[in-house]
Order: sequence, then structure tokens, then C-alpha cells
Amino acid sequence: MGELIYAGKAKQMWTTDDDQVLRVVYMDQATALNGKKKDQIKGKGPVNNAISTLIFRYLMKHGIETCLLEKTSATEQLVRRVQIIPLEMITRNVAAGHFATRFGVEEGKPFSTPVEEMCLKSDELDDPAINASQAEALGVVTAAELDQMWAISRKVDQLLAPLFKQAGLELIDFKLEFGRLPNGHVILADEFSPDNCRLWDAKTRHHMDKDVYRRDLGDLTPVYEEVLARLQQVLGQEEK
Amino acid sequence: MGELIYAGKAKQMWTTDDDQVLRVVYMDQATALNGKKKDQIKGKGPVNNAISTLIFRYLMKHGIETCLLEKTSATEQLVRRVQIIPLEMITRNVAAGHFATRFGVEEGKPFSTPVEEMCLKSDELDDPAINASQAEALGVVTAAELDQMWAISRKVDQLLAPLFKQAGLELIDFKLEFGRLPNGHVILADEFSPDNCRLWDAKTRHHMDKDVYRRDLGDLTPVYEEVLARLQQVLGQEEK
Repeated sequence: MGELIYAGKAKQMWTTDDDQVLRVVYMDQATALNGKKKDQIKGKGPVNNAISTLIFRYLMKHGIETCLLEKTSATEQLVRRVQIIPLEMITRNVAAGHFATRFGVEEGKPFSTPVEEMCLKSDELDDPAINASQAEALGVVTAAELDQMWAISRKVDQLLAPLFKQAGLELIDFKLEFGRLPNGHVILADEFSPDNCRLWDAKTRHHMDKDVYRRDLGDLTPVYEEVLARLQQVLGQEEK
Repeated sequence: MGELIYAGKAKQMWTTDDDQVLRVVYMDQATALNGKKKDQIKGKGPVNNAISTLIFRYLMKHGIETCLLEKTSATEQLVRRVQIIPLEMITRNVAAGHFATRFGVEEGKPFSTPVEEMCLKSDELDDPAINASQAEALGVVTAAELDQMWAISRKVDQLLAPLFKQAGLELIDFKLEFGRLPNGHVILADEFSPDNCRLWDAKTRHHMDKDVYRRDLGDLTPVYEEVLARLQQVLGQEEK
């Protein structure tokens, strides 16, 4: 079974026989408000695993290195072991969520150039906003790594915004995490799912992401399954 | 008397007969905690006016353009009228204050390279931290203006840290504000005083700045007067 090395809000990470490979377990759990709201949500683990596998494969096909090795069951993946850089790298195409409340801007306002921002991953400190100068001073990342991470984030946006558009979804914003391989090379890690991005239905502008849970707008799993079904249709393939 | 066009926490701005010139009145008032703490402090206005005039003159002598025209009385200055850019540009040589609490770092830790950060000036929004990408998206500043403002901030640090060192004071951090002249040119505005910077006594590391008020460490005015006296001694001149 390996050793549990990380128990997150929606995923667990376990060691395997290969010390460069970890087993990820997607759980049926959601949290919001930095853990103050927490619920079991039946079916969320499998659908997030399916969506994230599909997206990461799409990104890899288009030249982006990720931690994904293979999806091994409905709830599990094998991934490359990386040292996670403790920054949430957020790209915003349209004002929503924290940006809107923080700066008093109406949700739904598109940006002419995507906004790029970071949070320091720290439960004790409540994931504070952080800029490049501060992150470098804290020693969590180098300027060269930040350049690479933002270059990858921009490429992800350029690949995924049109993909979601084909699926009738608007990519409002998304959060990426990155990790270092043993040789120091930085690759995309964590996951890409409606837990970490905002997707609005292109016609109705209804939320098709974790805001359904955060804002108590209904059942989460059917919404995520709709996102998965649309992506599968666009990509013309089944991820099981 | 002119028209009162701005009533701030520690200063008032009045129009004059010349529409390119404003009269600044330094008041005997201090606020902290975004206005939740507020007190009259006898003698604070004159000493801040004296310190800021002395510092701005020193910066101007070394090639930095500022809004200062002349000190006209103990509590007043005439300044060039600018359109204030609503950003607080903060430079940190040593961890203290918000940086220390926000990121869980001990006060007093020096940075190998100064940390640069910004807050959006907005009482309603509680002066939120903001990065370059966000500020540009909100339309409050251009990338070119930010480059100029940080270049000036670095020059200010390089000029003032050694000056304060001669005065037996360590320049821990400081906040600058900038404004646009009618032709769009960006110059240093507002003030430079112990209200907007942290100064620690080089030997005792005692606070010689507004933290004396924020943290209830004693009477503020004698501390500011000591800073003024030391600067006057170093500069070999009297500012009255």
C-alpha cells in the first residue's frame, strides 16, 4: 500500500515501490473557506481524476511536461514524485472570486491581458497573496523558476481557453501548482479540475465549477460530470 | 485660504492662487490600524514637515524630482499639484510589520535584496496588497510608470539608507507615493517621515518611527524630534 506522505483536502499521496513515483488517490471530499466548510461529496473523486487526467494528457500532447504517468483506476493516478513549490499560480481571464471582492470589481469583467497573481501555500498563514519579490525573499522560488512557471501558465491558458470554448465553457480563471524534479527541472504538478478553475457555461454563464459548492448553488457531482462529458465529446475520446 | 481638496490622516491639501501649486498643512494627528486608532499628538505636524522637507531637499539635490517647492511655515509647504497614483510603493530592507506577520517571519531579518511590494490606496477596501499585473488590469498605473516608480524607489533607498546610517539609524522599510504632472511625467509626491518608514536605532534597535504610536511604546513627538536632530547634525544644516 505504501506510506501516506500527504493528506490534502481532496487528494492523498502515497509512496510506491519506485521512489520516483507516487500514487494519488482522489477523494470524495470538498472544502472551502480555507477548510471552514468541509463535506463528503459522492462521486467527486472519480470525476476529478477523469477530468484532470484528460486535461493533463491534452497539455502533454501539446508539449507541456506534467507529473502525470498514468490513470490506474477510477480514483487513482501514478505521478512523478516532485518537490512541490509552495505557490498557487493563478491566471485570470475574467474578474471573479477573490479578485472581484479584493478590489471591488464586478464579477464577469474580462481583462484585456490575463491577470497573474500568486498565493503562498500555507494553512497557518491562510494562503496569503504574495508577489515575486516577496516569494524570492522567502526563498521558496527563484526568479528563473517564476519565469518558467508563468511561461507554462500562459501556454496552458492559450491551450485550454479555446478547448473549453469548444465545450461551451468559458475559462474564467485557474490555479496551477508546480514541482521540481530531482534534477531541478520545473514541471506542472497537482491537478487541473473544476476544483482549481472557474468555468462558466458560455450561454447561461452558470457556474460549472467549485463555486457551486462554495456558494451552495446545488449538487456538485452532476455539474462536474457535465464538464467531463463535454470535454470528452470535444476530444472524441473516453477517459475511464 | 484656498479650497480644501484633500483631508488625509495627517495632512490637508488646499488650493492656492496658482492652479499648479497646492498648500500642504501637516497636522498634529496620528492614525493607525486603518483609522481605528486615532489621536491628537502635539508637535507631530511641525516635526514631520521639517523631516520631510529636509529629506525631499536631500533627494532633489541628488537628482530625484519631487513635488516639494518650499517650506513656508512650521506646519506648511507649497508643492506641485500632481495627480496621485493610488499605490503605496513599499521597499523593505529588513523584515518588519505586515511582512513579518503576513508571512510568519521574525522581525529584524535582513533581506539580501530589498523586497518591493505595493498596496492599493483605498480606505473602503482596506488598502489591499496588489501586484503589478493586478494594478495594470485595474488601470491605475502603466507598466512603464511602475518601472519608473521602482527605479526611483531604489535610488531613494540607495541614498537614504547610508544617510540614516550616518545618523545612527537603520532604514528598515519605507513607503513612497508618486504623482503625475500635467504632462504625464511621474515624480515623487506625498512625504518622507517616520510616519511612512521604519527607523531603528542602530545600537539599541529601538523603534524611532510610527511604531512607537502603533504599539503604544511611549510619546511620539520626542522620538521624531530626535530623528530630526540627528539628521540635521549629519546634514550640517537647520530646517526651520
